[in-house]
Amino acid sequence: MDEIKTIVSHKKGKVDVTPIATFYRNEIKESITKGNLKPRIVAFLTTNDEGALDYSKWTKIACNKDGIEFILKRVERVDLEDEILEANKDNNVHGIMVYYPVFGGMMDSYLQDVVSPEKDVEGLSTINRFNLYHNIRYMDAAQTKKCVIPCTPLAMVKIVDELGIYDKSLALGEHLKGKTITIVNRSEIVGRPLAAMLANDGAFVYSVDLNGIIVFQPGKRFGTIKMSETTITRDEAISKSDILILGVPSPKFKIESNLIKDGTIVINFAGCLNVDESIESRCVLVPTIGKVTIAMLERNLMRLYHNKVTHSSSSSTSSS
Amino acid sequence: MDEIKTIVSHKKGKVDVTPIATFYRNEIKESITKGNLKPRIVAFLTTNDEGALDYSKWTKIACNKDGIEFILKRVERVDLEDEILEANKDNNVHGIMVYYPVFGGMMDSYLQDVVSPEKDVEGLSTINRFNLYHNIRYMDAAQTKKCVIPCTPLAMVKIVDELGIYDKSLALGEHLKGKTITIVNRSEIVGRPLAAMLANDGAFVYSVDLNGIIVFQPGKRFGTIKMSETTITRDEAISKSDILILGVPSPKFKIESNLIKDGTIVINFAGCLNVDESIESRCVLVPTIGKVTIAMLERNLMRLYHNKVTHSSSSSTSSS
Repeated sequence: MDEIKTIVSHKKGKVDVTPIATFYRNEIKESITKGNLKPRIVAFLTTNDEGALDYSKWTKIACNKDGIEFILKRVERVDLEDEILEANKDNNVHGIMVYYPVFGGMMDSYLQDVVSPEKDVEGLSTINRFNLYHNIRYMDAAQTKKCVIPCTPLAMVKIVDELGIYDKSLALGEHLKGKTITIVNRSEIVGRPLAAMLANDGAFVYSVDLNGIIVFQPGKRFGTIKMSETTITRDEAISKSDILILGVPSPKFKIESNLIKDGTIVINFAGCLNVDESIESRCVLVPTIGKVTIAMLERNLMRLYHNKVTHSSSSSTSSS
Repeated sequence: MDEIKTIVSHKKGKVDVTPIATFYRNEIKESITKGNLKPRIVAFLTTNDEGALDYSKWTKIACNKDGIEFILKRVERVDLEDEILEANKDNNVHGIMVYYPVFGGMMDSYLQDVVSPEKDVEGLSTINRFNLYHNIRYMDAAQTKKCVIPCTPLAMVKIVDELGIYDKSLALGEHLKGKTITIVNRSEIVGRPLAAMLANDGAFVYSVDLNGIIVFQPGKRFGTIKMSETTITRDEAISKSDILILGVPSPKFKIESNLIKDGTIVINFAGCLNVDESIESRCVLVPTIGKVTIAMLERNLMRLYHNKVTHSSSSSTSSS
């Protein structure tokens, strides 16, 4: 990852995150081979959306390369809940994912909670988010089963870490102390969990969406997060930021380049670029993070696999 | 309720649901007085929205009349989660409600699940909805703690019942057999739970929202519901319906009267009327249902109160 380090130290240029993804995937692949493990994901697709199809293909290729069985199931959306409930019961399935939107809106939030938290490889169930927001690391009182974290925010934190932005000389919970971060997206899938995680590491975070801006910062007690209102404008928040994270799924949405100060780390996870590419001439630009997200999906799966197979009293490996 | 019966048998006229609300509230009031019970609701308000303020006032008046303590707490939205967690722990609080929207979108879905299901007087938590959709009636394996159902759909079902539309000569699960119902609203708070409940009672339900139409009908096994796609248009669905339920929170949204057949039961729960009032000259029109919704809120509270105080091993009544 020497090229990445050079780009970051020069405070400009475009970063390809492939080496970061490769690093984590190699680790996972090795553990699967060594342990002769049989992890399996079932992914449900209810639409013909090309983006979802492409993403599922890339995920399948990566998983299969690394020793993970990836089963893509095409189902009608009206049958999805029953299919998820079946997969919840299937002892040979360790992770369940769903390509959203299915119905859209709150019906999709409901479906996220139909997935058993023990197979919630994307980390989208309410209990996994609740645990994240409250810095609860284990799913059980005995502290044997680790929680999973939503894949995209987890990927983002790993990228921020690998870019060398964390100051590890500071105390735990303060590695991002003094850093101002703006995140344009406050979904429960990416933006809010990410704001909470970065605040938990000490950052001062402006969380922006269409309804306004909320500040996330470390709370008074270690491991807590404080949310507060602010009167700052989006433009002001962006111009103050050391890190700018963009996730608006519309090609029309672009942040004006002149708002962004020189040397800012700009990370885009929207699927389309929310900033003009020329910003790389004076900032660090990470245009896509999808490869690391897939690596984190694998990482979450292995966590769930170990929770089930290694730590469950009724443990049994795949019968196939 | 003789006047209601006359309107329904003449298949036209405007129905005032006050007597239905009074009937349920009197029952609740009597049980509170007789048992010397001390039920308490805490309601959280984060905005100055006049609709929410008005609704909270009416709810407080009704609750206090019936022997229920209703505490309205004004809090900042950024503090709401902590406030809910406090109320979850407070043994003297039996029901918690929140006036939504708070942040809007999925963050509000998250907050609905922060409310303990044991105090979820509005019936909005995922587990309560999951149980409703799967016809699970109890919160515990021992079947001592009854689930609660979202207030507005529950009010609607009670109204449909009191209007005499249920055919009680038919078997359980078939009381609405042969009835076609269109519901214009598919929120997880009202429209979808309602569609599921009416299908569970035997109706054929067209559930309409901006994204299209889904059919809800009884499943093959007793107590199950089948969802399916349809190519019918909204106008066709409405013109086939014996009951039309309207819940679009926009004064601009009106169903064209000429689509609605004579004698249709039209029930509106939107806060604004989604149909021209003159429809009452040839249909039954229930223009508002809010009073029955408040009665059902009280009914849910008493269920939670009994779940806690009567059926809990660590039971204790209010210490105040």
